[in-house]
Amino acid sequence: MTSYRLHYAPDNASLAVRLALEEMGLPHDTVLVDRRARAQRSAAYLAINPAGRIPALEGPDGAMFETAAILLWLADRHGALAPAPDAPGRAAFLSHLFFVSNTLHAEMRMMFYPGQYVDGDTARRALREGLPASLTRHLAMLDRAASAGTAGFAPDRPSVLGLYLACCLRWCALYPAGGTGWFRLSDTPALSRLAAGIEAREGALRAAAAEGLGPTPFTAPILPDPPEGSAT
Amino acid sequence: MTSYRLHYAPDNASLAVRLALEEMGLPHDTVLVDRRARAQRSAAYLAINPAGRIPALEGPDGAMFETAAILLWLADRHGALAPAPDAPGRAAFLSHLFFVSNTLHAEMRMMFYPGQYVDGDTARRALREGLPASLTRHLAMLDRAASAGTAGFAPDRPSVLGLYLACCLRWCALYPAGGTGWFRLSDTPALSRLAAGIEAREGALRAAAAEGLGPTPFTAPILPDPPEGSAT
Repeated sequence: MTSYRLHYAPDNASLAVRLALEEMGLPHDTVLVDRRARAQRSAAYLAINPAGRIPALEGPDGAMFETAAILLWLADRHGALAPAPDAPGRAAFLSHLFFVSNTLHAEMRMMFYPGQYVDGDTARRALREGLPASLTRHLAMLDRAASAGTAGFAPDRPSVLGLYLACCLRWCALYPAGGTGWFRLSDTPALSRLAAGIEAREGALRAAAAEGLGPTPFTAPILPDPPEGSAT
Repeated sequence: MTSYRLHYAPDNASLAVRLALEEMGLPHDTVLVDRRARAQRSAAYLAINPAGRIPALEGPDGAMFETAAILLWLADRHGALAPAPDAPGRAAFLSHLFFVSNTLHAEMRMMFYPGQYVDGDTARRALREGLPASLTRHLAMLDRAASAGTAGFAPDRPSVLGLYLACCLRWCALYPAGGTGWFRLSDTPALSRLAAGIEAREGALRAAAAEGLGPTPFTAPILPDPPEGSAT
């Protein structure tokens, strides 16, 4: 059987891919990307992921990057955790997967790393202050979709989109330190049920243990205490 | 044969989907989303696309949204313009498709609509001034990938990713009015060849004519003169 190699940092976007590998039971090893040494910008890492972000996944067809691309590729290749390409639910699933990738997750990246987008303290603060309203609206939209169960991520059915969303909920609750007062998981009851469902699964617990995320990584997360590396 | 209905506004992200429908020869009609009346925020439109953005596509499996999701779904459903789910090129193709969607296109959206992300003139200006460096770097990365031809969007082979990128190049050259001095298509020679190749295709010319984009919509674009609606 194919083995995968996941380039990760604890509690980074690579967590969503680790959850998928564990949930699908796929053999894999992991290689720490040392963020403190900015290893994600090293020539060796850029050869694997030219965007210089975490994660990257090495597999039978070479190296891949982009969290949602990896999740979708794994789901299709192994016929698990997503509607098949010809299934009727595929249209809604892809719509929401791309939305989470290019809107929810992109906005979170701006909250966490405003200095990548603007210069100056005033502009950085404006970005951090402006985004919660948009994030809140987008989480509410996803909660309605999860509640309706038509989008490939119903609370009671695991999917790569559900795994990805559970990570996003975790990060909203934890980061940036001191800037999470806008977020309450209970405001989105269907996403809350989804997080609880994933947290009850063995694969998720193995992934959480590997990165030092504690016993309730999605419903009541605490800052990670990873065995190696650092989240930021 | 299935017919599609594309909800569009001239020279909006819907252009990428129109190009794909034309290139694949798929029967479709189009419905204008009247941006001047903010029709994209109307209850009727939000029922089709809860994110309130353009485009949306109605097809046999219901309504879809998100440009890249629609492009990927069409490619898979009709077996055209993308590596098949089990093809070796799929991994690189998906990596780059998600990157364009959540990074290149997302950054362009921030350039065009900074007020959706921050309050205040200073912060909006900071966002507009900060993004060109990042966009330039990301276009250079995509140019290297196109040049290597391994990413599913080689200059001489049309793909939905190539169509999407040609639109992005057009928008970088045109928008926001007065704020495009940072962009030169000739800085990215492989992407420039890609744009020229798409522009020579009949499907692209039909799409351009439908939206009033002129004879060289990707290599030397001018502001649109659409038969109906408005780009902004």
